Amino acid sequence: MRAFFAARSAMWSDWAPALTAACPELDLAREGDPASFDAVIHAPGYPEDGTAMDFRPFTRARLVQSLWAGVERIAPNPTLTQPLCRMVDPGLAQGMVEYCAGWVLRAHLGMDRYAQDGIWRNDTVPPLAAERSVVVLGMGELGAAVGRALAALGFRVTGWSASGRPVEGLEVLPGSRLDEALARAEILVTLLPDTPDTRDLLDAERLARLPRGAVLINPGRGTLVVEEALIAALDAGRLGHAVLDVFRTEPLPAGHPFWRHPGITVTPHIAAETRPTTAARLVAENLRRAMDGRPLLYQVDRNRGY
Amino acid sequence: MRAFFAARSAMWSDWAPALTAACPELDLAREGDPASFDAVIHAPGYPEDGTAMDFRPFTRARLVQSLWAGVERIAPNPTLTQPLCRMVDPGLAQGMVEYCAGWVLRAHLGMDRYAQDGIWRNDTVPPLAAERSVVVLGMGELGAAVGRALAALGFRVTGWSASGRPVEGLEVLPGSRLDEALARAEILVTLLPDTPDTRDLLDAERLARLPRGAVLINPGRGTLVVEEALIAALDAGRLGHAVLDVFRTEPLPAGHPFWRHPGITVTPHIAAETRPTTAARLVAENLRRAMDGRPLLYQVDRNRGY
Repeated sequence: MRAFFAARSAMWSDWAPALTAACPELDLAREGDPASFDAVIHAPGYPEDGTAMDFRPFTRARLVQSLWAGVERIAPNPTLTQPLCRMVDPGLAQGMVEYCAGWVLRAHLGMDRYAQDGIWRNDTVPPLAAERSVVVLGMGELGAAVGRALAALGFRVTGWSASGRPVEGLEVLPGSRLDEALARAEILVTLLPDTPDTRDLLDAERLARLPRGAVLINPGRGTLVVEEALIAALDAGRLGHAVLDVFRTEPLPAGHPFWRHPGITVTPHIAAETRPTTAARLVAENLRRAMDGRPLLYQVDRNRGY
Repeated sequence: MRAFFAARSAMWSDWAPALTAACPELDLAREGDPASFDAVIHAPGYPEDGTAMDFRPFTRARLVQSLWAGVERIAPNPTLTQPLCRMVDPGLAQGMVEYCAGWVLRAHLGMDRYAQDGIWRNDTVPPLAAERSVVVLGMGELGAAVGRALAALGFRVTGWSASGRPVEGLEVLPGSRLDEALARAEILVTLLPDTPDTRDLLDAERLARLPRGAVLINPGRGTLVVEEALIAALDAGRLGHAVLDVFRTEPLPAGHPFWRHPGITVTPHIAAETRPTTAARLVAENLRRAMDGRPLLYQVDRNRGY
């Protein structure tokens, strides 16, 4: 089978060996007659001249496989009529679990209380995780994996998703009970996709529903948070701290107020990275499914946008 | 049954209600004829005048139950001939798990690389936990619980203990293979008791066995680490960082060099605190066992010292 590699040329050296190792029967190319390809493997940033990708010439393609989990940039492309699948890399989910567990524990343990100034502050003991309520917004692959890992560490975890679809081992509140979920969130982790329904979800009114001193951890999408509302909630002392890994503009401009706000920790979109070795296994599986006409894994529903 | 409360008077208000709730048949007192008590409940810091506790008048006592996990101060007391039991509080073990998981993840994720200075450092991705080797020295109740929790988070965990006694789900190296354990420790967690064999265990020679840039996390005992050797290893760049919760003198004096060393994070002995509510259940169980002549839980072996 033949697949067209529609990603920045800098990605070729990592991805081509991983993809052909996972799928030895694959003929992967960066050039050739579009009508000769059975599939397109795509990542944002292609074409590199900044124009929109034109999928129309790929008349034979049975699959457009994204190498990224987020498909908000490619999903609305009007030339894309082929089945589109998101990346769900087991390495990516595990990286996200580790990032969230690390930052949730840092907030929970109050690590930043211990300034290195010679003062022995042992008068307060943090509560155990069993007494700490953590809420995860978004119960997709990543949110569910994070919720389960936090529950395994002992935290009281509540999940929330638009559908309220059950997740084994977690209590999941449905869309209509968002306010209730927020009210429980001593620590709030947001792992929602970027869709019209989630954009600006955390505005002033919803941030005000969090318990006083709550900590927000957002490794999901920058568009979930209204920036001015976040800063106002921190300045008023209603919100305790925010750890942000994603932004409306990336890289976050050096002059952006988030960088210098004492209540905000910026990390440079490193919570979860797709790793070629593990991700290539999903690509290989979906290529084979596409060739055999079997159902694809993680196919995007264009109406929901993810 | 009658028990004598041999702990600082400041502890009475937390402990007396918890102990009598867990053991309604208990007559707990801070005064009275020593020969009238069936047991002594003890915590370091008693007597408050700084003299050594004299256990000889407690002629009827079948149990001395420590409220602390560490018994190195009371175990060598020559007047203590009654059975001595350590505290193993499920709340304490859980607190220790959370502390260790939090600091191991902080080191693993390289959180401190992300200075809030406007520079977008997303060029390196931390390896997954599955590629990170963590070694736990000490496979008692706490070490085993910490090792299992880190393994559940995905880390490659090796345990080490003098006996090498197996722990379910972990590889445990015996005493003779300490150098091998140290050589594997990208992150080293020390949860050993203070005994003649463990004192000064981490000296210059043993610190030199760690991989370059290793991180030490010591929530065990301050006496495990030779202070000058630790500072020299950090200054030479061989050791990456040290997180210390325990010290030879506590509180750590304000002028101690650990406070101001950029490679050392001091926390004020808060990794694990005994919590009266959960700890009182073990005291109640041991009091009943002592009265019935059944085997006691966590009885100290005087020859080993723990």
